[in-house]
Order: sequence, then C-alpha cells, then structure tokens
Amino acid sequence: MRAAYITDFETWSSEFSFSMAVSVRFSETDMFGHLNNTVPFAYFESARIEYFKQIGLMDSWLDPSGANIPVVADLQCDYLKQVYFDEALDIYVKAATIGNSSIDVHYMAKNEKGEIVFTGRGSVVQIGRQTGKGVPWTDADRLLLQEAK
Amino acid sequence: MRAAYITDFETWSSEFSFSMAVSVRFSETDMFGHLNNTVPFAYFESARIEYFKQIGLMDSWLDPSGANIPVVADLQCDYLKQVYFDEALDIYVKAATIGNSSIDVHYMAKNEKGEIVFTGRGSVVQIGRQTGKGVPWTDADRLLLQEAK
Amino acid sequence: MRAAYITDFETWSSEFSFSMAVSVRFSETDMFGHLNNTVPFAYFESARIEYFKQIGLMDSWLDPSGANIPVVADLQCDYLKQVYFDEALDIYVKAATIGNSSIDVHYMAKNEKGEIVFTGRGSVVQIGRQTGKGVPWTDADRLLLQEAK
Amino acid sequence: MRAAYITDFETWSSEFSFSMAVSVRFSETDMFGHLNNTVPFAYFESARIEYFKQIGLMDSWLDPSGANIPVVADLQCDYLKQVYFDEALDIYVKAATIGNSSIDVHYMAKNEKGEIVFTGRGSVVQIGRQTGKGVPWTDADRLLLQEAK
Repeated sequence: MRAAYITDFETWSSEFSFSMAVSVRFSETDMFGHLNNTVPFAYFESARIEYFKQIGLMDSWLDPSGANIPVVADLQCDYLKQVYFDEALDIYVKAATIGNSSIDVHYMAKNEKGEIVFTGRGSVVQIGRQTGKGVPWTDADRLLLQEAK
Repeated sequence: MRAAYITDFETWSSEFSFSMAVSVRFSETDMFGHLNNTVPFAYFESARIEYFKQIGLMDSWLDPSGANIPVVADLQCDYLKQVYFDEALDIYVKAATIGNSSIDVHYMAKNEKGEIVFTGRGSVVQIGRQTGKGVPWTDADRLLLQEAK
Repeated sequence: MRAAYITDFETWSSEFSFSMAVSVRFSETDMFGHLNNTVPFAYFESARIEYFKQIGLMDSWLDPSGANIPVVADLQCDYLKQVYFDEALDIYVKAATIGNSSIDVHYMAKNEKGEIVFTGRGSVVQIGRQTGKGVPWTDADRLLLQEAK
Repeated sequence: MRAAYITDFETWSSEFSFSMAVSVRFSETDMFGHLNNTVPFAYFESARIEYFKQIGLMDSWLDPSGANIPVVADLQCDYLKQVYFDEALDIYVKAATIGNSSIDVHYMAKNEKGEIVFTGRGSVVQIGRQTGKGVPWTDADRLLLQEAK
C-alpha cells in the first residue's frame, strides 16, 4: 500500500537530493526495543531546517526580532521498517509543491543498507510572528524554493 | 481545508467519547514560544494506550513474554491552532475502522475553551514480537474493539 | 549511600509538602524496558514550575516582555529504584536554601507504594533576559520563597 | 564556584580524550530560546554509550539475551553558559574512577569557540537484567576500563 502523497515510488524517491545524517539515540528507543514512533518527526524537523538553511530561508526566521516564522500545518509519517538503536539514517528532504505562503515538504529515511525505513510529508506555512496569519512568499523566496526543488 | 480522514467535521468530532487530560510541559515548548510540533504524537501515544487499556487489549502487549505487540504503521497530525505552555488539553481517541490485524485510530485535542487545536489519525498493526508480521485480531479482540467504537 | 545534599533522610523527606502527579509515558521508556534516565529531569522541571506558580513567582518569568527569567545552574538526580511504564509518581518539591539571586530546589519522587524512587536537587538562578546576569530577589520575592519553605 | 567533582579545572579538563559531536536540534530548545536543561543528559547518554562501544563493553549490554545491563545510579550537570539552537558541541567523556561493579563517568561539553558550556558526572552500575543487583566487573572489563582512562 502506497502513501497517498506518493504516485510512483521510483520517481518519487529519485527526486531527493538533499539529506542529513542522524544516528538513533538510546533515549529515542522505547520498551518495545525499537525507535519510538514520535522520533521521526524530530528527525524531519532537523532535516527540514538544514534544508531551509541551505536554501537561505532560515536566517530571518531564527532572528527573534524577525517578522515571520514557519509553522507546521500538518505532518505525517509512514513507517515501513522497524528502526533500532544506533542505526545510521539519512533523512532526505525535498520541496514537493510551493503554495502562496506555504510549502509541501516530503521526507524519506534510508538506513545503512539503503532500505527506505520511513517516509513522510507535511505542509509548512510562513506566518507573522505577531499576527499568526499566513504571509505570502516574496518573489525572492519563491525563486530560492524553486531552485531547490 | 479539511483533513482527508474527516468527511463531516460535526459528525466526526461528535463520535469521540474517550479522552485523556494532558498539560503542556515547559520542556515541550520550543524557541518559537509554542508547543513543538513533535509533541502531539507523544500525546497521541499516551492517549491511545489509555484507550487500549480501557478496552482490555494492553495487558498482553505490555507483557515482555507476550507473543504480539502493536506497532504504528502510519501517523499524521493536523495543527489547527497554536498551543502554548501550561495549556490543559483533552486528547480524544476513537477506533475509526477495524481491519484484519490493524485498527485506524483517530485523535482530537481540545483546549480549555473547547476549541479543537489539533486532530490526527494513524493505523496501528498487531505484529508478532519475533516474526514482525501482522497477527489478525481474535474474535474476542474484535468484539472488544467493536464495543469501544 | 546517601546523596551529599541529604543529611538525615527522615528529616529531609518529611520537609516536603508540595507535590505534582505524573504518569510514566510509553515514549519515556527505553529499550532496557524502564524509564529512561533523562526523563526525571523533565518531571523536576514541570514540578518546579508548578511550585513556583503556586508561590506566585512564575507569571513575570513567563511574560515574554518580562525582564527576568529563571535558569537552572546545576541539576542532579539519584536513582534509587527502577521505574516502569505507567507508574503513577508524585514529584515533591521544596526550596531548601535561598541565596541572593538563586534558590536551591530539592526533589523527591514516590511511587504508588510510597517508595522513594529517585531524589534530586538543583540551583535555579534568576537572570536578566537580555544581560544574562544574576538578578537578586526582591524583598517581596524573598518573602514568598520563605513562606513556601 | 567549582563543582565538587572537579578539584583542579585545568587538570580535570585536560584528562579527556574521547568526544562525540552533537548539533543542538530545534526541538531541544524551549520557550526561553535556549537549550532546555533536560537535554544535556541525553547528550551525556549518547556520548557515554559511544565511549563504552569504543572500549568494547557495549555489545553484551545491548544483546537482549545478555545477562547484564548498565544503569545510571546518579547523574548531575553544571550549566556554565547558555547554549542555543544549531550550536555544534563536542561532548567529552572519561572514566574517572572504577568501582567494584560501577564506574564514575565525567562529562564536558565544548562549543565551537572552545568554551566549556556544561560539565557533568554520574555513576553507572552494571546490574543483572533479572536480579537488578550489582554485578562486579570481570578482570577483562576492568582492564578495558583502565586502558581507556
């Protein structure tokens, strides 16, 4: 069964170029002996921020006096294989589609054998720090996001 | 915009009866001043386990010598309103549909004003602890799950 | 063997009056099957904040435009008994000694059988949000802290 | 003010040779804008395990059918400087003293400027997985630990 955000798996998985390495920490396991299901979302967040840093969007969002911040509007993960302590994973990130003030980000995690262990997606929206309302991408932002795609 | 798992919001939200209370911890906030987006999944897990405990399914899964454990096959969250430190939330849980060896669990979080702050869903599959393969519900399990719906 | 911050265990443990209840979450266990050693510090933080809220010190610290925040200068935990999933604990908090701009906070966790499962202490310092330097307690703060002791 | 476990800071800090790199994740910050005080203990755990892996002690502990596991008997952290999102830290680990079935492990975290941002220590005890009682080091273990010192 395919996740609804993946039309053709081969095509979808081949479109990633950016990735970030993580190692599964002991404190991220649970009493069932594997990676707890809440942890991939922390990996997604770290990898997404690295991706936005590389694109050049992160600086203004991290500035406490900056006008806008990115917030996650929705997030999902499909767990394909169990993951265990000390596994080295690569978390791939890509911008799938760019909206008016939002971006749909896709994720793919591979283990050392090259197996895809989980996939995911989620929409990130740029909002005003004070207003809480969506703030459209500037043309410059949009260009940066397009180039990264 | 509605999440794909919600056909009619009124109907959907009225079908929950079980809930668990949580308070947002300081360590669950992030530097944007709100609840970090990874935390609702920990709330979902806690509330889901309380729900399974009430149904009577949890005991054998928690027994280290038990044959089967439940694993999360997929999980998603839709963030409707920002949540802040010290908010008291009720995390509602219901079994939406029951499969052969799986169950589709839905979630809804309400704040003290009665506003729905995030919703979610995810499939839980019963697998063999050793085999890692799906293990069908017994008739007794199925009855417990049906009654809880 | 006694922790250095406990002179007489009977006296020390009898001096707590404030406590906060927590239940051990599944995501807080690790692959050794027990509560991960990093989690008591999150319980300490939550219980400490509840304690400061009750005293009346927390409001100005949580105000984003407030001048001062409390920071943890040091923290320690002594693990006396293993703790497992779903145990209900009471986390006790007391102000042991009050310094110029700091306070030494002690912690004690009891399980449902009344057994002490871990203890701890740590110094909290009030600093200026911008300066990062220690800010002495006002006479009013000191009075609140003394009364709570 | 010095932590009680540090006699001479110059000597103490010069005795570390093993270290592990970590980057501060966004989800590890809190609403005060800095690294939450509970997180250094997760860094300590990861670095300690890497250290034990390098020594050669970790394999039998991670084997689910192994007789013994290491548990943390106590743990403490002294926070010297505030740490922020995305800082790259090196977490140093050393075995300070070796007991009968325990080991006193010391920690030191340095930022990119070479500043020591927090230090810590804690005792790790080898216990029987079933008995929960202390299990003395073998001569072979003791040799490995001595060599690593």
